[in-house]
Amino acid sequence: MRTLHGNLRSPPTTRRIDMKSFFTLFASLLLAMLLLNSHRPMTDKDSTTIRKIYDQHLTNAQCYEDLRYLSTQIGGRLSGSPQAAAAVEWARQTLQQLNLDTVYLQPVMVPHWVRGAAEEARIVSPFYGTQNVHVCALGGSVATPQWGLSAQVIEIKDLSELDKLDKKTVQGKIVFLNKLLDDREHDTFNAYSHCSGNRYKGAPAAARLGATAFLIRSLTTAIDEFPHTGGMAYEDKVPRIPAAAIATRDAELLSGILAQDPALRVYLRMNCQNMPDAASFNVIGELKGSEKPEQIIVVSGHLDAWDNGQGAHDDGAGVVQSIDVLRTFKALDMRPKHTIRCVLFMNEENGARGAAQYAKIAQQKNEKHLLAIESDRGGFAPRGFELEHADSLLIPQRIARLHEWSQLFEPYQVHLFQPGFSGVDISQLKDQQITLIGYVPDPQRYFDYHHTANDTFDKINQRELSLGSAAMTSLVYLVSKYGW
Amino acid sequence: MRTLHGNLRSPPTTRRIDMKSFFTLFASLLLAMLLLNSHRPMTDKDSTTIRKIYDQHLTNAQCYEDLRYLSTQIGGRLSGSPQAAAAVEWARQTLQQLNLDTVYLQPVMVPHWVRGAAEEARIVSPFYGTQNVHVCALGGSVATPQWGLSAQVIEIKDLSELDKLDKKTVQGKIVFLNKLLDDREHDTFNAYSHCSGNRYKGAPAAARLGATAFLIRSLTTAIDEFPHTGGMAYEDKVPRIPAAAIATRDAELLSGILAQDPALRVYLRMNCQNMPDAASFNVIGELKGSEKPEQIIVVSGHLDAWDNGQGAHDDGAGVVQSIDVLRTFKALDMRPKHTIRCVLFMNEENGARGAAQYAKIAQQKNEKHLLAIESDRGGFAPRGFELEHADSLLIPQRIARLHEWSQLFEPYQVHLFQPGFSGVDISQLKDQQITLIGYVPDPQRYFDYHHTANDTFDKINQRELSLGSAAMTSLVYLVSKYGW
Repeated sequence: MRTLHGNLRSPPTTRRIDMKSFFTLFASLLLAMLLLNSHRPMTDKDSTTIRKIYDQHLTNAQCYEDLRYLSTQIGGRLSGSPQAAAAVEWARQTLQQLNLDTVYLQPVMVPHWVRGAAEEARIVSPFYGTQNVHVCALGGSVATPQWGLSAQVIEIKDLSELDKLDKKTVQGKIVFLNKLLDDREHDTFNAYSHCSGNRYKGAPAAARLGATAFLIRSLTTAIDEFPHTGGMAYEDKVPRIPAAAIATRDAELLSGILAQDPALRVYLRMNCQNMPDAASFNVIGELKGSEKPEQIIVVSGHLDAWDNGQGAHDDGAGVVQSIDVLRTFKALDMRPKHTIRCVLFMNEENGARGAAQYAKIAQQKNEKHLLAIESDRGGFAPRGFELEHADSLLIPQRIARLHEWSQLFEPYQVHLFQPGFSGVDISQLKDQQITLIGYVPDPQRYFDYHHTANDTFDKINQRELSLGSAAMTSLVYLVSKYGW
Repeated sequence: MRTLHGNLRSPPTTRRIDMKSFFTLFASLLLAMLLLNSHRPMTDKDSTTIRKIYDQHLTNAQCYEDLRYLSTQIGGRLSGSPQAAAAVEWARQTLQQLNLDTVYLQPVMVPHWVRGAAEEARIVSPFYGTQNVHVCALGGSVATPQWGLSAQVIEIKDLSELDKLDKKTVQGKIVFLNKLLDDREHDTFNAYSHCSGNRYKGAPAAARLGATAFLIRSLTTAIDEFPHTGGMAYEDKVPRIPAAAIATRDAELLSGILAQDPALRVYLRMNCQNMPDAASFNVIGELKGSEKPEQIIVVSGHLDAWDNGQGAHDDGAGVVQSIDVLRTFKALDMRPKHTIRCVLFMNEENGARGAAQYAKIAQQKNEKHLLAIESDRGGFAPRGFELEHADSLLIPQRIARLHEWSQLFEPYQVHLFQPGFSGVDISQLKDQQITLIGYVPDPQRYFDYHHTANDTFDKINQRELSLGSAAMTSLVYLVSKYGW
């Protein structure tokens, strides 16, 4: 309708004048239709209910206080760590206090990697002197030798450049991947996704050419001193070399000095360790559906978080928002038609074993999922939702359904309803033909904090966090009421 | 179209089935129309240009670095202060460096109020002891007596409650207005606007009943220790009493103790001063239009900022964004048809004298303004634009025009094009029948920082700031190309 209105009043161009009366006719009819549509009682009642949902979230601090506890009292909680165990128990107790119909733990074995206390690096140049730089081990990395390693550096701008290098050039050196995230991407997650594969596969690719270590520029558009950790993997029959991330400011420094002194060395020491797999859990709480309890709507986030920060945005926010959806259904005494299940996954960051376990058991039990929502893009102000489905023909139908509800979200500036990515954890359910939705907050600040010591509770705004919960609750309410 | 699509696939209800074929017909025709529309060459070229505009803003740090300088090297810059003079000179030099067609200063006399060094308050209770609380003088307030004042307190929840109180009850007391901002408002500016009148008029209203001072709960939904200053006014023939804001956490403390000990006293000391009006300037830079130089598009922010912080969000952001619009036109070698004028107003915070002066001179010169845009809601991620016009019949036409361009803004998540408020400064142009547009960033965090010591440069995200400039430049580009 907006586009139509606009065209009616556009300045005269040849093409437009031709179409003017054509537009006028349909604008009038469309307007009539929309008026009829917007006055149906269903919408009025829904609008009131959604207002109540927002009021509940905006005037209650519990979600924010939950996150304060999880972030500051438990903190970083990588799979297998004592903090991860604490997070599981905290989540179980928190769900229990909501008087749900069921709260239970779903056992899963998870990787257990420990960073260790030593994590240091220096640029050593006979011309420029010695300068400490900020690095952190990538999750899963092996340690350096006990007293560290020192090697010359070869800088590349993309992992694909390794294809053009031979063993003689790389042998014994540190491969320094200095790939910039593309500032121009409005959605920072796009910029990130163009680089994250490099982080994941970099170490074995460098090791294949005889490199002694792999160092990657941190995956952020910000220029600062925070190194960003993240998952990586080794490959069979390829030597396991230490892999670390270097802060962006230091990456620029290293690159700059390297251009002047190509023979400089980098000293690197890390004493991280891969331990035997550990027992852990997904934490699950359910509110049973009144009419179709066998049909399940999942709301989810992941409990584990990198050890170097507090995991406030990644993904404490998603955890407390998912819990808050159930809290609000209880607080407003809304009994959903379908079962609403809060799933707090373990091990999203370095293995997604919790998600795999959940998907496996869901399939074994032949469970029916009407919808799964994941919140794992930070606790920022809501923009909307992205939808994913194994059946690509169903996607436009589902999106159209969301658009039908868009006027209900309009007062809360939730405008985005588009195909896209759902989330690392729930995407494991894709094969089961489930409608998957990723909650989309504003993406601009996420990679300032992501996987760093800077992902702390003070970076959370209470209103932005609560508006996220409110958007999720509203969507669950609508799907639970009307289905697809 | 979105709503139509939705309806086509909605679940069967009686009403909808009746209308289904009706919908189908128009959906198809509308789709055809939109396809024709979206393929017109004009849109493609505009889409490319706007992509270039965004790339320019997203890959250049100058706007952010400008704000760093203004915030951290000049800082708070209330009208009449040495820092305001520094800001004027900085702005003049910064515009000069862009090689514009004109850069000039527009003289204006402004109020000159000085906070002074002393600003302290304590709750004094024989039962609860003495507790310091965080306060700050409201802008324009008179001082307390040299060694402060001590008085009993009467708490009200809204200024209107004074109507029910008599002189005997209020005489000699401090009126403590403990009105909460409404958390439920999605747009925090709405919540603020329901309270800001209380701050402005509170002191004379209390003084009329013989109050000895006026203390207002800070205008924010956050609960913290930052007192929020802001403008206030006295009235003729009403005694001028000291007026201060108290941090929200301390307001809750005072209210809580007051309920237990109604005879407690509050000690307050401030030594602020109203000085004679000072000479200052609006700073103006212009890029002349190639076809209609006499028609002007204004982009604007205000140079002055409260003295207790750095004025980063309020309104350093608007200043550097407005400058950045011109910088980008130059960098991309885009010569606009109409003149683009960057106006950096003086004295928005406590008098809006700069805006009044600008409006007066524009009228005297009989200048034609095609559009005025103001950015004064912080440097957060863009949401869209609000439009204001003295001729209410023109508003829907202008909004329709903006909606016509909405698909060009869609990739950048600029979704909001609605009637609303433009800004304190440009709204002084309203009588001259000018189309006024307020740039609207996300409103959730603004009142965490507004008018406090916490409004500092580190609260700015470079990408959010630059996306705001980009949205403004894109709108200026479109209006300059097509007019209304």
